[in-house]
Amino acid sequence: MLYGNTFGNLFRITSFGESHGPAMGCIVDGCPAGLNFDPDIIQADLDRRRPGSTPLGTKRNEPDRVEILSGVYEGQTLGSPIAMIVHNKDARSRDYKDISKVFRPSHADYTYTARYGHRDPRGGGRASARETVARVAAGAVARQLLAQMSEIEVIAWVDQVGTLTASVDTDKVLREDVDRFPVRCPDEKTAQAMENQIEEARKARDTVGGVIGVVARNVPAGLGSPVFEKLDATIAGAMMSLPAAKGVEIGSGFSSCTTTGSTNNDAFIKDDNDAIRTQTNHSGGIQGGITNGMPILTRVGFKPVATHFQPQSTVTTDGEETTFTASGRHDPCVLPRAVPMVESMLLLVLADAMLGARIARI
Amino acid sequence: MLYGNTFGNLFRITSFGESHGPAMGCIVDGCPAGLNFDPDIIQADLDRRRPGSTPLGTKRNEPDRVEILSGVYEGQTLGSPIAMIVHNKDARSRDYKDISKVFRPSHADYTYTARYGHRDPRGGGRASARETVARVAAGAVARQLLAQMSEIEVIAWVDQVGTLTASVDTDKVLREDVDRFPVRCPDEKTAQAMENQIEEARKARDTVGGVIGVVARNVPAGLGSPVFEKLDATIAGAMMSLPAAKGVEIGSGFSSCTTTGSTNNDAFIKDDNDAIRTQTNHSGGIQGGITNGMPILTRVGFKPVATHFQPQSTVTTDGEETTFTASGRHDPCVLPRAVPMVESMLLLVLADAMLGARIARI
Amino acid sequence: MLYGNTFGNLFRITSFGESHGPAMGCIVDGCPAGLNFDPDIIQADLDRRRPGSTPLGTKRNEPDRVEILSGVYEGQTLGSPIAMIVHNKDARSRDYKDISKVFRPSHADYTYTARYGHRDPRGGGRASARETVARVAAGAVARQLLAQMSEIEVIAWVDQVGTLTASVDTDKVLREDVDRFPVRCPDEKTAQAMENQIEEARKARDTVGGVIGVVARNVPAGLGSPVFEKLDATIAGAMMSLPAAKGVEIGSGFSSCTTTGSTNNDAFIKDDNDAIRTQTNHSGGIQGGITNGMPILTRVGFKPVATHFQPQSTVTTDGEETTFTASGRHDPCVLPRAVPMVESMLLLVLADAMLGARIARI
Amino acid sequence: MLYGNTFGNLFRITSFGESHGPAMGCIVDGCPAGLNFDPDIIQADLDRRRPGSTPLGTKRNEPDRVEILSGVYEGQTLGSPIAMIVHNKDARSRDYKDISKVFRPSHADYTYTARYGHRDPRGGGRASARETVARVAAGAVARQLLAQMSEIEVIAWVDQVGTLTASVDTDKVLREDVDRFPVRCPDEKTAQAMENQIEEARKARDTVGGVIGVVARNVPAGLGSPVFEKLDATIAGAMMSLPAAKGVEIGSGFSSCTTTGSTNNDAFIKDDNDAIRTQTNHSGGIQGGITNGMPILTRVGFKPVATHFQPQSTVTTDGEETTFTASGRHDPCVLPRAVPMVESMLLLVLADAMLGARIARI
Repeated sequence: MLYGNTFGNLFRITSFGESHGPAMGCIVDGCPAGLNFDPDIIQADLDRRRPGSTPLGTKRNEPDRVEILSGVYEGQTLGSPIAMIVHNKDARSRDYKDISKVFRPSHADYTYTARYGHRDPRGGGRASARETVARVAAGAVARQLLAQMSEIEVIAWVDQVGTLTASVDTDKVLREDVDRFPVRCPDEKTAQAMENQIEEARKARDTVGGVIGVVARNVPAGLGSPVFEKLDATIAGAMMSLPAAKGVEIGSGFSSCTTTGSTNNDAFIKDDNDAIRTQTNHSGGIQGGITNGMPILTRVGFKPVATHFQPQSTVTTDGEETTFTASGRHDPCVLPRAVPMVESMLLLVLADAMLGARIARI
Repeated sequence: MLYGNTFGNLFRITSFGESHGPAMGCIVDGCPAGLNFDPDIIQADLDRRRPGSTPLGTKRNEPDRVEILSGVYEGQTLGSPIAMIVHNKDARSRDYKDISKVFRPSHADYTYTARYGHRDPRGGGRASARETVARVAAGAVARQLLAQMSEIEVIAWVDQVGTLTASVDTDKVLREDVDRFPVRCPDEKTAQAMENQIEEARKARDTVGGVIGVVARNVPAGLGSPVFEKLDATIAGAMMSLPAAKGVEIGSGFSSCTTTGSTNNDAFIKDDNDAIRTQTNHSGGIQGGITNGMPILTRVGFKPVATHFQPQSTVTTDGEETTFTASGRHDPCVLPRAVPMVESMLLLVLADAMLGARIARI
Repeated sequence: MLYGNTFGNLFRITSFGESHGPAMGCIVDGCPAGLNFDPDIIQADLDRRRPGSTPLGTKRNEPDRVEILSGVYEGQTLGSPIAMIVHNKDARSRDYKDISKVFRPSHADYTYTARYGHRDPRGGGRASARETVARVAAGAVARQLLAQMSEIEVIAWVDQVGTLTASVDTDKVLREDVDRFPVRCPDEKTAQAMENQIEEARKARDTVGGVIGVVARNVPAGLGSPVFEKLDATIAGAMMSLPAAKGVEIGSGFSSCTTTGSTNNDAFIKDDNDAIRTQTNHSGGIQGGITNGMPILTRVGFKPVATHFQPQSTVTTDGEETTFTASGRHDPCVLPRAVPMVESMLLLVLADAMLGARIARI
Repeated sequence: MLYGNTFGNLFRITSFGESHGPAMGCIVDGCPAGLNFDPDIIQADLDRRRPGSTPLGTKRNEPDRVEILSGVYEGQTLGSPIAMIVHNKDARSRDYKDISKVFRPSHADYTYTARYGHRDPRGGGRASARETVARVAAGAVARQLLAQMSEIEVIAWVDQVGTLTASVDTDKVLREDVDRFPVRCPDEKTAQAMENQIEEARKARDTVGGVIGVVARNVPAGLGSPVFEKLDATIAGAMMSLPAAKGVEIGSGFSSCTTTGSTNNDAFIKDDNDAIRTQTNHSGGIQGGITNGMPILTRVGFKPVATHFQPQSTVTTDGEETTFTASGRHDPCVLPRAVPMVESMLLLVLADAMLGARIARI
């Protein structure tokens, strides 16, 4: 809503914080009263996102302990805003001294300066991926809400690294399958190849991109809105708001562009319980912007991380052409850590949609 | 915002109307006062979207004359809401009598019923692509605002039909190039092949999908917001809200997932006027969610139209399995008519972003 | 929300129209699907607001026939936006030719020009009280929603004209009591005196102010929000947004400022059905911004109409001092016609609050 | 917006915190980048609101040190959200043990329970006036923004305590005049009488109400919106959202209800600099919801504090009738401490309106 720091209509998060400022955090507003609130679930999701949570990630060492400042009393939400903060501890701002005078290619240094006139260069400031701490904390509140309001489960995984693509059964994949390998790909053989590819990139002082897949199962039919806030539109916006995301598809996505209607349509059938379902799921669980009860399927494409360690041509803040070579601690591949981020965004979207369904009929 | 009928923060459209109700329309709120307002520009964009505007489209014959009900006085906007309506004239509701009792596959019949308890089955009701009349009318207001506030130009084209992909120079393509062929692909050779493919689909009583490309040129640096409303996120949500859209990419999109950072990064250079630009444009004009002054590049994937004329398995509203065969007037390919829709969405996003830049700094 | 034309969070109206433009109207978004929708109820409320509805009002003769453009199918709301328009028929713009070059005192001519650079002078343009057509139409949708969701009833009346104050039993007053007299004061003796006072003002080519009282009975406990959207705050904003409103009080209002806590507090007691109620109702049914189940009581003060027919000092649009004497058709007292406007605003607030209560708890 | 914790369209505060939870705080979103940001100004305003800031207030001893968590870098705002927190230190929750099982009359205990199912009884939880810490902190950011964007100055004072009414020159009154006396009334003689009256109330174990006056001077013409967000409507809502507020008037307010148009209208004249102004200011600086350049004048009526120390009839949370006598630390009169709160609300409204004016014209 307007400044980019708020997400959601009814279940709503407002995020704040610069990478090397005192703290990151968010306010979750609109979480209904009476939710059994477990801070350990939030901490667990933060731990999963944390730098150092996989051996493939950055070496920045942040404990990322969440503090709950409001909105909860005797283990239950009050219906008032839930404020959560995570202090920034291991912020080595000296690593960024040398970059305060240069626009790093494919980073937000130049564009933030163009917009705001100045910027906080330390760790990327507001543009840092560290901002996703707030999303994951809020997503873990949404996770609890969905668990207590529905049977919905949301599982994301690394579906592609470079050209390596995993084979994943979206009806069955579990979080424990995903977390079995550091790369967070549940397909064992591909997982090993992906790790190798990431290690090779690290050695080449380079970075690689990839794709996250995510499924939401047991989603009731009737979630989502028409026209501008079709659920797939909201999901697309949510996912594309993640750092480095450059593409989103729902269901068959771009591959449906090359098929025909007669092969792409999802025939309605009745299952053994006489419930309506579809024979195929090319729609990815959403038709006309509203869920049909089938699993929601989304793929999110991430570009290779902009910070690699090879020399790059660029321009200084004074407008002089120069060569820049990055230093510091950076991931060669964001994909493993993007798994909890993608999950969080879908959890936020679905928590919002669940509340919306309550007021759709008289 | 909440019910899906409103789009934009500062330049804001609220849309209404069912396909066979009395009228479609919208309110544009937030258009600044003092804009020179030309209803002919709106009518021209509506004509371009109109059924019958290309020989490849549906045979529904709607004059789609726009009436301006408010917000304009002596050729200038007042700063008050601009209400526009288009009456539905050629609504043959009898064509839809037979579908009121059946859930058409991959349409919104079932999901709307799941959400709202009932629906207007005539012409798809609110879920009809006819809803995009409102978007195009509002987009034509945005077009005028951008023309009077900036040098921005927005051009969309059919980039792919089935497996046929056009070759388009995004730095130079013009609207007249796009409109030269009924299929609205500016690449002559491919355009002819696309038309053939669409005609073949029509003969096969089937439908085909494809991709729309769109570019915005002369966009100032500094448009867009951080975090949840990165400009690419807003564009992704906007595009995915179009009927039948299933995928969106910004810049290099999914193809960047298979590259490395050292090849994918856009080096900053200075152009002949000493202005900062990038050597390549894999970012599609947006870095950290904010424009960098380079052209914005987006591709939007559309599935094949759900209404084909072959028999399909489905379920009635009473829950009985049945076979459904569509009748009526329907496009075998939405792509040519999606061109003005995609343009409109990007115009709306950019008009909103231009106003947002006015309040980003003290 | 931002431009002033939208009201409500969940039950939301967006209004448009200039007094002498083609039409006034609104979109009601967020009305739940499945409401039995009766356009006659809307027409009846519009008729009550209509110029000419009381012999005390302006002589402008507007039929004010409402057209429903969307959102309703077979007598039931669809959950999609309900667009309603009322064409402006008896707009004598020639009456306003002479005022296009002068800033009428205590009107919005000067302030609109200061804000927007120009204005529609015909009939006051957007600043005309004719804008309340949209509020009353939307209020009549809210009335139907409340009737089908609750036992709530909302009754307004003329409580004061000049120094004449009515005596009204807020627990019992009915709409038919209010409508018994042209002045819409249910207290017979005072009603007659008020009429006389208004007639005297008319003869003196002057205008008089007064106060509208309103009560909402059978309101469930638990409606409203904390902090910035306390229900009394929302009501205050809603009422003060009416043309010519200059003061609002809730419950005992300003008179509570001169009492002590021990006399002003509302003791809780149990009624014959063991339900909790309060012994007195100085709080006007709202405590901490949330309803307590007692009647909501509000008073809204209106200044005398700015258009009287005596000569006034003022300044032209060119900045020359001048004398202005109004002509045309104008009410000496807005109070009788303000009754349906005040009711509408409270209906809108309560419809919104009823929906809000659905998502306050898990 | 929806849950009551957010205020403002463009300059927007989201507040959080329960009285005895870990912290109160807020996020200010929409403060433009490049503002010179002085935390001492925030601390000074918080000190003025602080319990113990006047000898007439509660004895709760809170240092109320503000911590800035984000949004500021090297003394300038970044354009990103400014998160501010104030820890709750002197929360004696034992004082509230005895009230967790009883609904205090004219407090929010019952209504919060009716809405949310449960509540945080410690110190009134979210319904505590301690919540205004967030408003005052945000107001002090707005104060800085207005100081750097305009000449606007906002001064509030205690205008009435019980029946004692001050005489104040709204064109000249200064903050230092207000702060000269503990009761924050700039009229010396009345100030002394007010103090006596408050002390008498304290001795009588009772509480008294009153009225805050506030003026905004040097306000440019053209601020505010039409229809639902007329500036007076926004101010009315803002003021009525303050704890214990029960009435609001703009300009002549309720007293204008008893006058005639010919005496109440504000004639336009030209001042010595040829600028347009009005001869009188019954409109309180706002006409048609938009400022006319004259001082904005508002009065806000507060009921006597609900917590007095005499026995009161009430009902327990189990529904048993009982007698309740308050203990703990409570103000006999909120008026002196309401002065910075009222100022803050007007500052927030005006900062928002100043930004809004930037996008009203092309």
